[in-house]
Amino acid sequence: MASETQAGPGGAPALPLPPMAWDAWGDPALAKPLSDDIRGLLAAALGVSPLDGDRPTAAEIRLRPSALTGEDVAALAAVVGPEHVSTADADRLPRSGGKSTPDLLRRRSREPQDAPDGVVLPGSEEEIAALLAVCAERRIAVVPFGGGTSVVGGVDPVRGALAAVLSLDLRRFDRLLALDAVSGEAVLGAGVTGPRAEELLAEHGFELGHYPQSFRFATVGGFAATRSSGQDSAGHGRFDEMVRGLRVVTPAGTLDLGRAPASAAGPDLRELFLGSEGVFGVITAVRLRVHPVPAVKIHEAWSFPDFATGAAALREVEQQGTGPTVIRLSDEAETAVNLAMTERIGGEQVTGGCLAVTVFEGTKEQAEARHERTRAVLLAAGGTPLGAEPARAWEHGRFNAPYLRDALLDAGALCETLETATDWANLGRLKDAVAASLQSALTAGGSSSLVLCHISHVYPTGASLYFTVLGAQQDDPIAQWDAAKRAVSDAIVGNGGTITHHHAVGTDHRPWMDAEIGDLGVRILRAVKETLDPAGILNPGKLIP
Amino acid sequence: MASETQAGPGGAPALPLPPMAWDAWGDPALAKPLSDDIRGLLAAALGVSPLDGDRPTAAEIRLRPSALTGEDVAALAAVVGPEHVSTADADRLPRSGGKSTPDLLRRRSREPQDAPDGVVLPGSEEEIAALLAVCAERRIAVVPFGGGTSVVGGVDPVRGALAAVLSLDLRRFDRLLALDAVSGEAVLGAGVTGPRAEELLAEHGFELGHYPQSFRFATVGGFAATRSSGQDSAGHGRFDEMVRGLRVVTPAGTLDLGRAPASAAGPDLRELFLGSEGVFGVITAVRLRVHPVPAVKIHEAWSFPDFATGAAALREVEQQGTGPTVIRLSDEAETAVNLAMTERIGGEQVTGGCLAVTVFEGTKEQAEARHERTRAVLLAAGGTPLGAEPARAWEHGRFNAPYLRDALLDAGALCETLETATDWANLGRLKDAVAASLQSALTAGGSSSLVLCHISHVYPTGASLYFTVLGAQQDDPIAQWDAAKRAVSDAIVGNGGTITHHHAVGTDHRPWMDAEIGDLGVRILRAVKETLDPAGILNPGKLIP
Repeated sequence: MASETQAGPGGAPALPLPPMAWDAWGDPALAKPLSDDIRGLLAAALGVSPLDGDRPTAAEIRLRPSALTGEDVAALAAVVGPEHVSTADADRLPRSGGKSTPDLLRRRSREPQDAPDGVVLPGSEEEIAALLAVCAERRIAVVPFGGGTSVVGGVDPVRGALAAVLSLDLRRFDRLLALDAVSGEAVLGAGVTGPRAEELLAEHGFELGHYPQSFRFATVGGFAATRSSGQDSAGHGRFDEMVRGLRVVTPAGTLDLGRAPASAAGPDLRELFLGSEGVFGVITAVRLRVHPVPAVKIHEAWSFPDFATGAAALREVEQQGTGPTVIRLSDEAETAVNLAMTERIGGEQVTGGCLAVTVFEGTKEQAEARHERTRAVLLAAGGTPLGAEPARAWEHGRFNAPYLRDALLDAGALCETLETATDWANLGRLKDAVAASLQSALTAGGSSSLVLCHISHVYPTGASLYFTVLGAQQDDPIAQWDAAKRAVSDAIVGNGGTITHHHAVGTDHRPWMDAEIGDLGVRILRAVKETLDPAGILNPGKLIP
Repeated sequence: MASETQAGPGGAPALPLPPMAWDAWGDPALAKPLSDDIRGLLAAALGVSPLDGDRPTAAEIRLRPSALTGEDVAALAAVVGPEHVSTADADRLPRSGGKSTPDLLRRRSREPQDAPDGVVLPGSEEEIAALLAVCAERRIAVVPFGGGTSVVGGVDPVRGALAAVLSLDLRRFDRLLALDAVSGEAVLGAGVTGPRAEELLAEHGFELGHYPQSFRFATVGGFAATRSSGQDSAGHGRFDEMVRGLRVVTPAGTLDLGRAPASAAGPDLRELFLGSEGVFGVITAVRLRVHPVPAVKIHEAWSFPDFATGAAALREVEQQGTGPTVIRLSDEAETAVNLAMTERIGGEQVTGGCLAVTVFEGTKEQAEARHERTRAVLLAAGGTPLGAEPARAWEHGRFNAPYLRDALLDAGALCETLETATDWANLGRLKDAVAASLQSALTAGGSSSLVLCHISHVYPTGASLYFTVLGAQQDDPIAQWDAAKRAVSDAIVGNGGTITHHHAVGTDHRPWMDAEIGDLGVRILRAVKETLDPAGILNPGKLIP
C-alpha cells in the first residue's frame, strides 16, 4: 500500500506539508508570547487564569484510523502515482481542519481526533477528473485543500453519508500559467499561495494586491472559492472582483468560464463558483486582473472623536471615490487596546477616540493626488491627522494578529473574530446589536468579555464590520464559543447583516444560509450541486444546508 | 370576455400602450427623414435603391388570432381584474416583438404576423405569482415585457411546446419604492423607464446614471434582465454593477436577493438573475446604487491618428483609473461617416483619423481633476484635443441613432448593429475578424457594405466593440441579414469575443451559448430553470439552448 510504504517510521510525512503549523496559526517561529503586563491585564480585566498543562505534541495526538481500504488507496495511486497518495497520520493531521478558535482548541485535545482518511496531491486537471470518478465510484468524499486557513470549518473532514473522506491538496497547481501585460491579466494555478503569486507576478513588474490576513498561507484557489477580501480592497477590490475567468473540474465535466471583460450573455456563471467552497467542483486555475507594482506608498493615520464620526468620514471617502488603497477604522475599544498593546501610538494628540489607517499607492503623482483628495475629505469630516507612523505600524503587523490569538489561547483567554457587512445607514445599529449579543453570550457564563470592532472594507453603499472578542476560557471553551457564535449569528441576520463578509460559510455559517438567501435560494444551490456532483462527493456538510 | 368587452371598435387598445411605436424605434415624432445628399451617397456608395410602396399602417396588419380561450382569459382576469387583460389586436401588436432590424422588417409585412395571444398588466407580486400559477396550469407561455426595446428577439412571442403565449407587461411596477440617501441606494419598480427613474431620483438630488441607447423607453427590470450597459459605464459602471439587490417572482416562489454591499455567503445568486431574460422568473424590483446629481459636466473630444493608437490611449486611461464618466472611440470609417453626416465637426484639425469623446462629471473640483488627469494621458498617448463641441454634439444626439436606422430602412438600406467585447490584447484581431466577416457576408449577395465600429465601454482588462453595418437591401433583407449575422457570430466566438457585451441573448444569440459557456454551463442553466420553472412557461426559446 502506498500509505504503508511511504509513511516513514515515527510518523514522518510522506508528502510535502501544508504551509501552516498543524496546531496553531502559520509558522510557529513567528509566534509571540504575551508579556507579563498583558497577562496581568487579562487576569485583572477579564478574569483570565493560566491553563493547566502543556499542549500535546503531534506525536501525542491520536487520529481516528483511516477508513480507506487498500483497494481505495490503490485506485487513487493508479491515478496520481503512489508518491502522491498517503494515509499516514503525519500527512492527515495537518489537513484535519482549519484555523478557527474551536479548530485550534479541538486540536489541543488528547481524545482521538478526526482527520481525512487520506491525502492526494494531483498534478493535472485530468488527474482531478479521474480522482473524482474514482471517489464517486468508491463513495469517498473529497475536500479540496489549499492553504488550510479556513476559519469556518471549510476544510473539516466531513464524510456526510459516505464511507471515507479524502483531502485533495492543490499544492502542485503552483504556476503562473499566463501573463498578458497589455490587458493586465494573469492566469495562476489554484495552489499558488499569496506570497508566491506576488513573487511570480513581480518578476514581470505586476502585482495582484490581494492581502487578506491569511495572505502568507492561503491560495489563489481558496481566495476564489471563499470570496476572500484583502486589506487593500478599497484600492484593488475584493478577490471576486479581480477574477476574470476560472477553470473548474467537476464530476460532470470541466468548466472554463469568463470569455470577456464583461458580457451580457446570460447569467454570470463565474459567480456560482466564486464562493462555492468546493461543493460544486475543484477550481484549478484563476484568470486575474493585475496591475503594475506601485512605485510609491503613502501612509497616514487619523484620529476621530468617535466611531460614528469616523464611519461617516470613511463613507464620504468611498462615495466620493477619492482613491485610497487601504482605509480602515477601529472603534473606541479596539483603538484603546491597540494603544495599550502596541505602545507605538504615543504623543499627546491621541487621547482615545478612534484610529483610522489610510494607505495610498500608484505612481508618485497618483499616490499624492489620492492622498490629498482623501485628506481633504477626512479633515472636513472631523479627523485629526496622526502622521505616517501609526499607519506604518499597522501595515508592518497586519498579518500577525492570529499569532497573538495563539498566545492568548495558550494563556487561558478565549479569543475569536467574526465579521459581517451592511449598508451605511444600518452600520451603527448592526454594530451595537452584534456587540451586545457577544457581551451577553459571554458574560452569561459569568466571565467578562471585551468586544473590539473595526471597519475593514468599504463600499459606496456600505461597509464590513470585523469583531474581535476576548474573554476567559471556561471549562468547555468550545461549547462556550459555540453558544456565543449561535447568538451572534442570529443577531447578525436579525439586524440586516450578511452572515459573512469574507470568511465564507463552511460548516459554521451553514445554519444561517436559509436566512441569507431564502429557502428557494438554497434549492437553487442544491439543483446546481445535483447537476455537477450527483454522487454528492464534493465537500459534504459545507455551504449548502 | 374581458378581451371582447374592452377592445374598442376599430381596434382601439384596451390597455395603456408601450412607450415605443409598434413599427419603428421610439417616438415617430422624433424620426428624421434622410437628406437628399445622404440618399445620393447611399445610392452611389452602396447601391441602395428606393423601395416600392409604403409601409403598412397598423390597421392593415393582420395578426394571427389569439389562441387564448374564453376560459383562459377569465382565469387571467380573475387574478388581475378584467381591466388589466386584453386579447385585442391593438394591445397585442405593440408587444409582438423587439426592435432589431429583422423585427422591424417583419413588422412591415402584409402577411399574417405573430403576436402574443394576450396581454396582462399585473399590479403586485402576488398577482404575478398567481398569474404564473394560472399559466402553468393552463399551459400558457409568459413573456415578461418592459420597454420592448430588445434587439435580440428577447420579447418574441414564442410558445415553445405550449398552447399560447402571454405578454406580461410590467408597466404598473412604476414606483420609487425606497431611497436611502445615506447609503446611496434606491429601490425601483421593474417597470420604471430610464427617464422616469432619473425623474424620481432627481426629486431627491440623486442620479442613477444609466444611459444605454434604449434609455428613453427601456425599464429598470429590463436593464437587469439583460445586463444592460450605459454610455456612462466608465464612470458609473454597467447596470449589473449598480445592482445591490433584486426581487424575483418565480413559479417556485419569490426570491429577495442581496443582503449586503458585499458578502462571502456562497455563490452570488443575484448574478444568476442578472441576464436571466425572464426565463427563471419575473424581476419586480431592483435595489440600485445611486449617486448625487453631478454639479458639473466637462466635455472634450479628441482625434487620434488611427484606431490602434486611440485604443491604446483609452486602455491607458482605464488602467490608470483617471476617472472619465464617458470615454469612447470611433474607428476611421465611423469617424468619416459621422463627419459626413453631422457636419458638426469642422475646422482644419480634423483630417480623418479617429474621433474620441470624453465626458467628466462630479463636483467642479472632481470633474476638473478627472479631466486634467485624463487629458494628460490622452496627450501623452498621441491624441489631439478638438474642444468641447464634438463631444457635446455626440451627447446631444446620443439616443438618436436608431431613428436614423428607421429612415435608412425606409430608404432601402439595410442597417443593423451588433457588439462584442474582449481583452485589450485581442481587440485589434477581433475587430478585423468581425469586420471582414461582415463585409464578406454582405458582399456575397453582390452589394457593397460599410462597416463602422467604435469602442463604447472600457474595462481595465479589455473593451467592447460596437459595429454598425450599412448596405443595400436585397430581395429578402431578413434572410440577407440572417446569413450575415450567422457568419459574424461564428467569427466573434471563433476569435475570442463574447457573443454579446450588452444586447443580451434572446433568440438571436442562443445558438452561440454553447460556445460561450460550454455544454456544462448550459446544463447548469437548465437545472436552475427546472427548479424555478418546472412547467417551462417562462420565456421559452430564449437564452438557454
